[in-house]
Amino acid sequence: MDTQFDLIIIGSGPAGLSAAVYAARAGLSFIVLESAYASGGQVLNTHEVDNYLGLCGMNGFEMGMKFREHAETLGTEFVNKKVSAINNIEEIQKEVVCEDGSVYHAKNIILATGAVPARLDVPGEEEYRGKGVSYCAACDGNFFKGRRVAVVGGGDTALEDAVYLARMCEKVYVIHRRDVFRGAKSLEDKLYACDNVDVLWDTVVEQIRGADVVQSLSLMNTRLNMPGTLRVDGVFIAVGTRPVSNLLAGKVLMDERGYIVANENCVTNIAGIYAAGDVRKKNFRQIITAASDGANAVNALIL
Amino acid sequence: MDTQFDLIIIGSGPAGLSAAVYAARAGLSFIVLESAYASGGQVLNTHEVDNYLGLCGMNGFEMGMKFREHAETLGTEFVNKKVSAINNIEEIQKEVVCEDGSVYHAKNIILATGAVPARLDVPGEEEYRGKGVSYCAACDGNFFKGRRVAVVGGGDTALEDAVYLARMCEKVYVIHRRDVFRGAKSLEDKLYACDNVDVLWDTVVEQIRGADVVQSLSLMNTRLNMPGTLRVDGVFIAVGTRPVSNLLAGKVLMDERGYIVANENCVTNIAGIYAAGDVRKKNFRQIITAASDGANAVNALIL
Repeated sequence: MDTQFDLIIIGSGPAGLSAAVYAARAGLSFIVLESAYASGGQVLNTHEVDNYLGLCGMNGFEMGMKFREHAETLGTEFVNKKVSAINNIEEIQKEVVCEDGSVYHAKNIILATGAVPARLDVPGEEEYRGKGVSYCAACDGNFFKGRRVAVVGGGDTALEDAVYLARMCEKVYVIHRRDVFRGAKSLEDKLYACDNVDVLWDTVVEQIRGADVVQSLSLMNTRLNMPGTLRVDGVFIAVGTRPVSNLLAGKVLMDERGYIVANENCVTNIAGIYAAGDVRKKNFRQIITAASDGANAVNALIL
Repeated sequence: MDTQFDLIIIGSGPAGLSAAVYAARAGLSFIVLESAYASGGQVLNTHEVDNYLGLCGMNGFEMGMKFREHAETLGTEFVNKKVSAINNIEEIQKEVVCEDGSVYHAKNIILATGAVPARLDVPGEEEYRGKGVSYCAACDGNFFKGRRVAVVGGGDTALEDAVYLARMCEKVYVIHRRDVFRGAKSLEDKLYACDNVDVLWDTVVEQIRGADVVQSLSLMNTRLNMPGTLRVDGVFIAVGTRPVSNLLAGKVLMDERGYIVANENCVTNIAGIYAAGDVRKKNFRQIITAASDGANAVNALIL
């Protein structure tokens, strides 16, 4: 089987679906490839989204479905197949091969495969996800107003999250396994300027405990080999994210973490290959910025 | 009267309102200044918006009000005052002076004042606005599927609009007052590759005529001094836009057309001054990209 399109969108999160909306309206021939029905997007796993302009206080799954319906209404064809390879990317007709052996060709590909937060891999993490365990301070911080929370991590995201949460939470603990942060100095300065933040150095989380919701963390100070218990209402895990960019590994320019280097118009270093949403190197990974990327990518490929 | 805030947002279109949503959730002290109630945003004047992900086929006014309610729900304070000056922009505390003499201070200002399409200033233009006269091909093109339309202008936007419309319209006429385009060569090539596009050189529109909706254009070929009539169902006016950036004229870096130069994080050349939405120099001015800017600007100023 071989089919040719103007565009193939890989991924059905906000970036991919917004690209589909713009592609449909531009009259392009295109498909959206997704590994399984509605497999796309961290949004589907978010308890409540409050910051996507116009859809206030909406359940993440409901929002993801609304996005999908919008693309469907405009005639988007979804194909539920997992992509196994993208070939001939420097040629006019690029080739997308799926795991079932089917092959599609298109002049343009928008990779909108997103990113996934790295896990701590400790007991309780999965059990309390959405019940006190969060991977997104900007998404969920507001639900912990006046409460005690911990942020786990020592990079830019952990520092950003802690500074963000300090504005609304009674108390923020930053739990870092090393004795120095990896994040930007400016962020560190901002962190130290918050009087309701304490940093626990050389400390790892061993278990997340609770009843219906998170109640405490079992910690270990690895320098002193001293266990401890920290009472918190929530824990924000910010130990990094992992872009889902393996399909283009070694083929387009990426940063050292695997995010695809593309400008705000989603243009990569390879003609006809666009990166939209969380898989792109950018400062702020949000639903609204991902949806914007999808629009920009289609605009860039039309012109 | 003198009040101090973390942030003043000027403008209540999608960029300003999305900034308000993010500012509210970040716990910032802020206000939104708008010249009159719901004065903000070209969206309010759009017949139907089909391309803002998640709000399919919504009336522009209704969408604008939905955006506003979202910001209000999160506690945004709107102040209906026209800003007359922004002073001390290089100091930590910037000063915003309103026409009624009131003064506000803030560490950060997000200018989200948008842009307005330039008018042709011909009879019928105002009368048929939304009834065949449009200023946005990406917004309204789909409503002219299979129809005959004209694009007026000779710059990038006119060429882009014509190429865009050629995908869906039966026929596209480009009406340009000169005998050469001002737009990018690559766009011109794309235009000539469309077999349903005709260019009318040295031609100006003298009147837009119709009954309930647009039916024809009265034209004048200025080289031959020859009048003519062109039957069309719609006319897209793309003779440029004008950013509403006068408040910062001479104070921050702008391009030759007055758009504020800022990166995708909305950071201008002056610390604490951000430009979000259509007033920013960018490739694609859409509701979704404006809303994204608002989020990025708040993220940039927090960090």
